[in-house]
Amino acid sequence: MTDIAAIEAAAARLAGHARVTPLLSSPFLDDIAGRRVLVKAECLQHTGSFKFRGAWSAVSALDPDTRARGVIAFSSGNHAQGVALAARLHGVASVIIMPADAPALKIANTRALGAEVVLYDRATEDRDAIGDRLASERGLSLIKPFDNAMVIAGQGTTGLEVAAQAAEQGVSQGDVLVCCGGGGLSSGIALALDARAPGLRVRTAEPEGFDDTARSLAAGRPVRNAAMSGSLCDAIVTPEPGKLTFPILQRLAGPGLVVSDTEALHAMALAWQRLKIVLEPGGAVALAAALFRPDKISGDAVICVASGGNVDRPVFEQALALLAE
Amino acid sequence: MTDIAAIEAAAARLAGHARVTPLLSSPFLDDIAGRRVLVKAECLQHTGSFKFRGAWSAVSALDPDTRARGVIAFSSGNHAQGVALAARLHGVASVIIMPADAPALKIANTRALGAEVVLYDRATEDRDAIGDRLASERGLSLIKPFDNAMVIAGQGTTGLEVAAQAAEQGVSQGDVLVCCGGGGLSSGIALALDARAPGLRVRTAEPEGFDDTARSLAAGRPVRNAAMSGSLCDAIVTPEPGKLTFPILQRLAGPGLVVSDTEALHAMALAWQRLKIVLEPGGAVALAAALFRPDKISGDAVICVASGGNVDRPVFEQALALLAE
Repeated sequence: MTDIAAIEAAAARLAGHARVTPLLSSPFLDDIAGRRVLVKAECLQHTGSFKFRGAWSAVSALDPDTRARGVIAFSSGNHAQGVALAARLHGVASVIIMPADAPALKIANTRALGAEVVLYDRATEDRDAIGDRLASERGLSLIKPFDNAMVIAGQGTTGLEVAAQAAEQGVSQGDVLVCCGGGGLSSGIALALDARAPGLRVRTAEPEGFDDTARSLAAGRPVRNAAMSGSLCDAIVTPEPGKLTFPILQRLAGPGLVVSDTEALHAMALAWQRLKIVLEPGGAVALAAALFRPDKISGDAVICVASGGNVDRPVFEQALALLAE
Repeated sequence: MTDIAAIEAAAARLAGHARVTPLLSSPFLDDIAGRRVLVKAECLQHTGSFKFRGAWSAVSALDPDTRARGVIAFSSGNHAQGVALAARLHGVASVIIMPADAPALKIANTRALGAEVVLYDRATEDRDAIGDRLASERGLSLIKPFDNAMVIAGQGTTGLEVAAQAAEQGVSQGDVLVCCGGGGLSSGIALALDARAPGLRVRTAEPEGFDDTARSLAAGRPVRNAAMSGSLCDAIVTPEPGKLTFPILQRLAGPGLVVSDTEALHAMALAWQRLKIVLEPGGAVALAAALFRPDKISGDAVICVASGGNVDRPVFEQALALLAE
């Protein structure tokens, strides 16, 4: 069970290792949104996404003997890089299980961060069986991407920073929009804000067609997505809300927000132009909701968490092409 | 005369108004450079460059009656935006004098930040005469881009942050590479480091063909550039070192570094890929020197100041095209 004490403890473990990312703004974005827009730039976190926080939190929370045997994760994306770097900085081995058809660059980046990458064939092999075998043979600890209390606590440290930085900017009331896949980041932030800035409320942001959290919050029970691929926002596409995370969001989050892929790309372009930060589509949906769903938000200021920036060049150029010259 | 007391005073005036920008890093950049690379991301400053610091410092240092009459600056670039926003936030008027052939987007952005933009014809009109007339008619205070003690003090606040952030990272010895045009940023940082982190030494970075500061430092006297245009690094092209700034650099800076436009573009692409920040060519020359001139630098770590990110899309796409797929 993750609570504010667990988040504060994670923050103590992360101090000096994770970056305190800045809260950015631009008068040009304020004009578009019709209110102040404050952007928590987690794309500037180590490995280019907030995932390093949860990974560091989980790896650092293991008892030393267990940790020394190494960790394992299933991911082809941001969680893989976060776990790989957190393990390397702790001086322990990491095994990352990826589909053999993952982009070569992601495999190379994860290896370069010190991980042993184990590839499997999606069509013929069982990922979980491979993971179970490796974990039991080598005594590796599995670091799940969101349904892990220590991971949620680590992501929640983002919320502690948001609470403090928003207060410095004079903002104590309003919505905090958070890009949402499995809900680790949004539930962690929700717990932190509930304790440290109760006037700030989390709202999840998701891409159209993959809005399982918004629909689940509306339905009052977990609802699955119909598809598992087909969004540019691949980093935040999950089948359904997490088992640990959804009850937290049910208790603390407002209604979910949903944007189109094109709106996410447009938000990426504006973040490039006005904030000088690089976002991936899944990392831009919260900003997109702030800019393009003003009627669904109340208050004089809105905070959005820009959760990651690991994007390939063709997709980024597609985003920039949306800017008027 | 700018000294550490003036920089500390500027820092007090800037507190809560300028951003404390983060010191970023990536193991991928360390591998390229062969040493730790720490990047001070001033592109994340208000208006997308360090210029806001100097502008705020100068505007806030005016006595209130003088300030109330407004300020004036000559610039088509980053200094214009810095002065416009600093004036607006102080509730006073700003007049920015720009050539009529400046890019429409820069004119629009400067106006959007609240400035009155006065255009002149480079071929037939005398910029200084227009400025003198407006200043005397309306009692405006001229804010020069670098040869102004309060501007240098404001840019020097970057150096105070570098000293503190480098110490947090365990770095107390080494070179601090600074993108250099007129020398306001590099001389301000040099003064701050001399007082607060004497093991850190400023090295200017400039584009090939516009390396007046490197050649002036080598010659022991100010030397002019042969041309005033023809570099992609337009933000840092100046005819010669500043009258106030050059003596400071002569006293405190090491030999100047020089990179090609293509190296600056390559550094922009790597900053996009590995740090998730947006740089303009003139804001990337220090990082380019850190990455591509390793033999000219000594020590286990190098710090570079990424000074600005106001870049047009075609130039940015030219940079991204240099990345291997």
